[in-house]
Amino acid sequence: MAKLYVIGIGPGRRENMTLRAINALIKSEVIVGYTPYIEYLEELVEGKEIISTGMKGEIERCKLAIESVREGKNTSIVSTGDAGLYGMAGPILELAKDIEVEIVPGVTAAFSAAGELGSPIMHDFCSISLSDLLTPWSLIEKRIENAAAADFVITIYNPRSKGRKKHIEKAVEIMLKYKSPSTPVGIVKNSGRDGQEQIITTLGNIDYKKIDMLCVLIIGNSMTYIENDHMITPRGYDL
Amino acid sequence: MAKLYVIGIGPGRRENMTLRAINALIKSEVIVGYTPYIEYLEELVEGKEIISTGMKGEIERCKLAIESVREGKNTSIVSTGDAGLYGMAGPILELAKDIEVEIVPGVTAAFSAAGELGSPIMHDFCSISLSDLLTPWSLIEKRIENAAAADFVITIYNPRSKGRKKHIEKAVEIMLKYKSPSTPVGIVKNSGRDGQEQIITTLGNIDYKKIDMLCVLIIGNSMTYIENDHMITPRGYDL
Repeated sequence: MAKLYVIGIGPGRRENMTLRAINALIKSEVIVGYTPYIEYLEELVEGKEIISTGMKGEIERCKLAIESVREGKNTSIVSTGDAGLYGMAGPILELAKDIEVEIVPGVTAAFSAAGELGSPIMHDFCSISLSDLLTPWSLIEKRIENAAAADFVITIYNPRSKGRKKHIEKAVEIMLKYKSPSTPVGIVKNSGRDGQEQIITTLGNIDYKKIDMLCVLIIGNSMTYIENDHMITPRGYDL
Repeated sequence: MAKLYVIGIGPGRRENMTLRAINALIKSEVIVGYTPYIEYLEELVEGKEIISTGMKGEIERCKLAIESVREGKNTSIVSTGDAGLYGMAGPILELAKDIEVEIVPGVTAAFSAAGELGSPIMHDFCSISLSDLLTPWSLIEKRIENAAAADFVITIYNPRSKGRKKHIEKAVEIMLKYKSPSTPVGIVKNSGRDGQEQIITTLGNIDYKKIDMLCVLIIGNSMTYIENDHMITPRGYDL
């Protein structure tokens, strides 16, 4: 019976894919994804039927992938990072009740970014997306507030787009009610793929113009420090 | 110059390792890790110098790995999951200021567990470890409280050990102040490796005897539901 693989391909570069993700692509006749993500896969998709659509075509892609499995073809639908966090695993399982689905986990953008910055996460953390397309902004604000008040490390996805220029500034304003302006902040653009850039700065000193949709931010907890160009959150061991 | 690779090998099974992790192991003369983690690597460590120590030997292992690099040998120190979350990246960067270090990200246990359960995370989430060996219990309680109050999905690491039998019960009690007893909960033991077991239950109905240190828990948000033996947190799309 044909199967749908919902694959997290990691940040983009082949080396960050798992063997399981590569094997699932090899087993698939049809590959479905957002056009740039398909390009990351390079020769892994050669000779296969490709179904790619543009931005905001998420649900259309899910439906096309499910249709392809119903036609009897092993199919992969790809997300960057991990498909189970802000990815395609949810909509697929909501829509596909009659076919076999396998979720293939991957390296999410925040963990890839963390590895470039040093060890900024290490301890309890919260992941928050600033996109209010699908979530009320009031709930996002509440989550930022609660995460900052309990001294979590905070990873921010979708920090700033053309239509949401001020969200990140509002988020920082809320965090500054609880976190010191000297709290280290890492900003990584295109983490784990071509064009990677990174900045280590502090919460009181962010240059918002450097932030766009291709960035992930990691805001430290009260123990996080900067040393040797690394952002380090201690685990708490007595060294 | 010799280099230290701090590798997240994922949950354990080879297929969940990234190509980058495998390549780093191949490039290393010396492999350092907790004994069971070394066993997961099988023939990838054949012919290499192995330094393995028992539980709670984390800092000893870090020091031995750093020493090995100072002696001029390319060395890998391995964590399960991602080395940057409750792993070895932090202590290594705190201790090793004079050597080259590369952090190699991996698939963390919660994401592996999520893939087995369906799409329980999907949206904003908090990761909390219930181990109070290195963190005051009062801070852990505050984090649980704030995470539950802002309707985050919550992933729980180190939920229950012989010395900490009641922590998970206290954590659930706090969550029940904000989350309904019908909130779906996924419990995955040995996620992504041999001996995997999983249970989908609800917050009001957890059988604590089934939980030990080898488990990861995922507690849903107010939108999470159970269908077709899957735990599904909607992303919010209008399907």
